[in-house]
Amino acid sequence: MKFSCSRDALINALSIAQKGVSNKTTLPVLEGILFQVYNNQLVLTSTDLEIGVQTSIPANVDMDGEIILSSNLITEVIRKLSGEEVFFQKDDSNQVKIECLLSNFTIKGFPTDEFPEFPEVIEEHSFVIEAGVLKEMIRGTIFSVAVSENIPVLTGLKMEIENEAISLIALDGYRLSLKKGKLKEPIDGSISVIIPGKSMNELNKLLSGYNENVIVKFSKTQIFFEMGNTQFTSRLLEGEFINYKHIIPTEKAAQVKVSRKLLLESSERAALLAREGKNNLIKMDFNIDQLILTSNAEIGDVFEVIPIENQGDPIKIAFNSKFFIDALKVIDRDEMSIELTTSVGPAVIVPADGSDEFIYLILPVRIAEEA
Amino acid sequence: MKFSCSRDALINALSIAQKGVSNKTTLPVLEGILFQVYNNQLVLTSTDLEIGVQTSIPANVDMDGEIILSSNLITEVIRKLSGEEVFFQKDDSNQVKIECLLSNFTIKGFPTDEFPEFPEVIEEHSFVIEAGVLKEMIRGTIFSVAVSENIPVLTGLKMEIENEAISLIALDGYRLSLKKGKLKEPIDGSISVIIPGKSMNELNKLLSGYNENVIVKFSKTQIFFEMGNTQFTSRLLEGEFINYKHIIPTEKAAQVKVSRKLLLESSERAALLAREGKNNLIKMDFNIDQLILTSNAEIGDVFEVIPIENQGDPIKIAFNSKFFIDALKVIDRDEMSIELTTSVGPAVIVPADGSDEFIYLILPVRIAEEA
Repeated sequence: MKFSCSRDALINALSIAQKGVSNKTTLPVLEGILFQVYNNQLVLTSTDLEIGVQTSIPANVDMDGEIILSSNLITEVIRKLSGEEVFFQKDDSNQVKIECLLSNFTIKGFPTDEFPEFPEVIEEHSFVIEAGVLKEMIRGTIFSVAVSENIPVLTGLKMEIENEAISLIALDGYRLSLKKGKLKEPIDGSISVIIPGKSMNELNKLLSGYNENVIVKFSKTQIFFEMGNTQFTSRLLEGEFINYKHIIPTEKAAQVKVSRKLLLESSERAALLAREGKNNLIKMDFNIDQLILTSNAEIGDVFEVIPIENQGDPIKIAFNSKFFIDALKVIDRDEMSIELTTSVGPAVIVPADGSDEFIYLILPVRIAEEA
Repeated sequence: MKFSCSRDALINALSIAQKGVSNKTTLPVLEGILFQVYNNQLVLTSTDLEIGVQTSIPANVDMDGEIILSSNLITEVIRKLSGEEVFFQKDDSNQVKIECLLSNFTIKGFPTDEFPEFPEVIEEHSFVIEAGVLKEMIRGTIFSVAVSENIPVLTGLKMEIENEAISLIALDGYRLSLKKGKLKEPIDGSISVIIPGKSMNELNKLLSGYNENVIVKFSKTQIFFEMGNTQFTSRLLEGEFINYKHIIPTEKAAQVKVSRKLLLESSERAALLAREGKNNLIKMDFNIDQLILTSNAEIGDVFEVIPIENQGDPIKIAFNSKFFIDALKVIDRDEMSIELTTSVGPAVIVPADGSDEFIYLILPVRIAEEA
């Protein structure tokens, strides 16, 4: 293996490949990045066995070859170099000489035979989506993924596609988040898969700064996201997702139009004291034209008044403030609608203009009725 | 106590007062900030018994008074409020009502009688220095303060003043940092005190964003820094500082002119492998016209070549890379001079132009001579 490449391009490629590197592994090669040189390109691959990342940059190749280098060390070394072009050469004992301007490194590599194969795309379906749309959908749902692995499928995001409509759904037993988007072109038939939440988190990091189209492909057990020269893959979760459509109430006793900003700010203030208490509890008293938020703890209490328009009955209800704030933070509308049934039924937050772009459902906390 | 004030001004004042709040204390009132209202101003005071911070903002005062409020809670509450003016009112049981736009907080305060008095300035000496000069002097020395408390005075910075010359000196047994500056006006006589390193760290944070003159005053046991409406005080360390002037060698066998940037970058690269080894060791081989830096570890090795001008003998010497990098990072010259005596004597880094603005002295690591 003997080649040179641009240091800037390599820094960028390494920061991408690092996203796939395993932090805690019993297999030492997985702490490394696989360098493969062929066809005038350098291909970097990393995997933690759940996800995989592969990216390529142009290289001036004198001799094809491959090696695994410690991800942390090689990334820091390349970042700290001063020159524009970096020269690599591997000797017979897997030592890699790295030269750049006045610097000469020799770094021990690992043989590549133990490195897992990058999963093959066996195209069952595929679709194209704008990076911006995909990012908004992930941001709008990922926080509702279950942390506990009691019901493994709930640690994933359900992705549903039909024609050109795509939905991501996450639910953790206390709340449900659903966000819709559109594909670039409709597909034939439908797709329904469950993607691990952790994988989507990593994908989201890779997507930051990428604003072109993403090509999404599937094999039986894997999903692939192609972003230009970078490919990200994750295994899919097996099992049946909960039939979430049954959870969303069809009746409503109160329908409340409210400013997202005012409600978020008031909820955050109330949460300061809710947090001091034990359970993050904020009480919401929906009247006809105002919402009164209260929260109290040993150190003090808070009382907030927000103007609303309630086309329905007054309802007193209480929530875990965190769940409300999480949802309010990701909604990108000035105004939204909160639909309520009873003081023990879920709150459903939807766009105020009747669009079905998102649904946030939050279960209330039952509290003893005050006298 | 009844008053109102600008929320923006209060946020700013709280962020200043928070710097003096104790993080770990057995005296609960020290987790709070003392609010005092009189003379149309709100005065905020905090202390951890070692340092104290006091700052004031204008207030519309209806009734004088004082109270202690939990530092973390009041800071977060004021930050999260939406209005421009905040109204405070204390009731007979030390509860404080805080109103701002549609928000109403009631927060339990603590009575003020247990709060320590802010130390009084009994002016023994005083001087004026530009904030920028003081900041550069702290930044240029603070990293050399001893962490271990074996020799308590070494956890402090020595401040020496004579006429208009001021020096800060820190030394930890492995290295010494000395940085000089100028006062706005010469003083009569001389001053020599030792200020705890932790206090200077907090002062440095308070100075960020402040670019006017700082008035420095002393009492027997305290130092006071006045920055506009803010006053910072620290107790002084008692004891004799080590006579550092004896440590600085007067002879030199090698005198090396070198680019700060090249040496810093090479040292940082070499340190990547030095760190992988056990002792952060980098070897420096000073020839007549080039310096060769090497470092090696199990994972690999590095070899760097830097052009120098050595007006003296070649010397092979080794250092803890961290000490070298710490000093190189704070020097604000393009070129500097490294003076060496023998391979077991200290390196002295001074300005290349003969100025006495700074001295960085670093003890070498003794290594077995290679064959």
